Amino acid sequence: MTEYSSILLENAVNELARLPGIGKKTALRLSLHLLREDKSRTEALSRALSLLREKIVFCKKCHNISDSALCAICSNARRDENLLCVVEDMRDVMAIERTSSFNGLYHVLGGVINPVEGISPSDLKITSLIERMKTEDIKEVILALPATIEGDTTSYYIYRFIKSENLKITTIAKGVAIGDALEFADEVTLGRSIMNRTPFDNG
Amino acid sequence: MTEYSSILLENAVNELARLPGIGKKTALRLSLHLLREDKSRTEALSRALSLLREKIVFCKKCHNISDSALCAICSNARRDENLLCVVEDMRDVMAIERTSSFNGLYHVLGGVINPVEGISPSDLKITSLIERMKTEDIKEVILALPATIEGDTTSYYIYRFIKSENLKITTIAKGVAIGDALEFADEVTLGRSIMNRTPFDNG
Repeated sequence: MTEYSSILLENAVNELARLPGIGKKTALRLSLHLLREDKSRTEALSRALSLLREKIVFCKKCHNISDSALCAICSNARRDENLLCVVEDMRDVMAIERTSSFNGLYHVLGGVINPVEGISPSDLKITSLIERMKTEDIKEVILALPATIEGDTTSYYIYRFIKSENLKITTIAKGVAIGDALEFADEVTLGRSIMNRTPFDNG
Repeated sequence: MTEYSSILLENAVNELARLPGIGKKTALRLSLHLLREDKSRTEALSRALSLLREKIVFCKKCHNISDSALCAICSNARRDENLLCVVEDMRDVMAIERTSSFNGLYHVLGGVINPVEGISPSDLKITSLIERMKTEDIKEVILALPATIEGDTTSYYIYRFIKSENLKITTIAKGVAIGDALEFADEVTLGRSIMNRTPFDNG
């Protein structure tokens, strides 16, 4: 006998426990929850996951997750085609879209350079970014990568490839978070926000 | 456009977020994880969940989750048929089995009486328990329900139905956990463990 008294249950627990952040105990709790709920709920979940993995498309232009060959942002004529924002993954696109303060296009790298985890430039969508710089009429590139060593490394790597006289290359501002007391900001952030201080009537 | 830039992704996130303890952010993280991994992983997960809900069987005798009409414990001739342990759900069976200190049979109620959550005796496998008392040769029933008001209520409810002259009815000992310092035990537990003290050479 297996510990779970059912091979079916054991399989479900094992598969769920492969997901990040889900251990065997949580996997068992989730499985028992599904067993208590109506059969249609499990069917809907199972089908949604299958379809996601089977049918998902990545936008051929910006590499964001999409339902069609060209994503809703890239195919939107109202977006500013001269402005390109380079991000790590689609969650960053979602986060920036929620701010409603950006109306350009995106380029999703799919990660940042990370030798420790074995992610090299060739694993990222950098070649296609360089290609876009040649074929599209981009006037400004915003490097909106994480404020980490890996993010900075990737930004600099890209910068070296795309820099040219007519192109403005910027990065998102780093500093004390809005609403945060200075005493709670870490030293590096606070130091950088003093160095990169802006004219008062600008903020 | 949906917030997730793909209906497929949105569906997967919504279905995952219906699970207890999983919010939208975790659901998105899990979905993106599946997309990064090999297609076969998602297929295996999806299939395991479908099969679990579709094919699961409950033992006709003890109501534990099983792969066959009679579970591995009920059909094991080496188990003591005179001893019956009544538990809330299958996780308790697993927990008791792990201790290797019980060799009898189980009866899984599928919950405890809880008026607040609308769980009445008729929602539990109590009728079939009373039936087992008549048809099987049970000499001792161990009520191993949670040490809560609901558990105690259920124990007493069952006790009134099954008590008879030739039947020994016991409950699991409640007290200070092995390895715990007394100062960290709550007052009710400590008080009860003093009231229910046992001869020293017994422990």
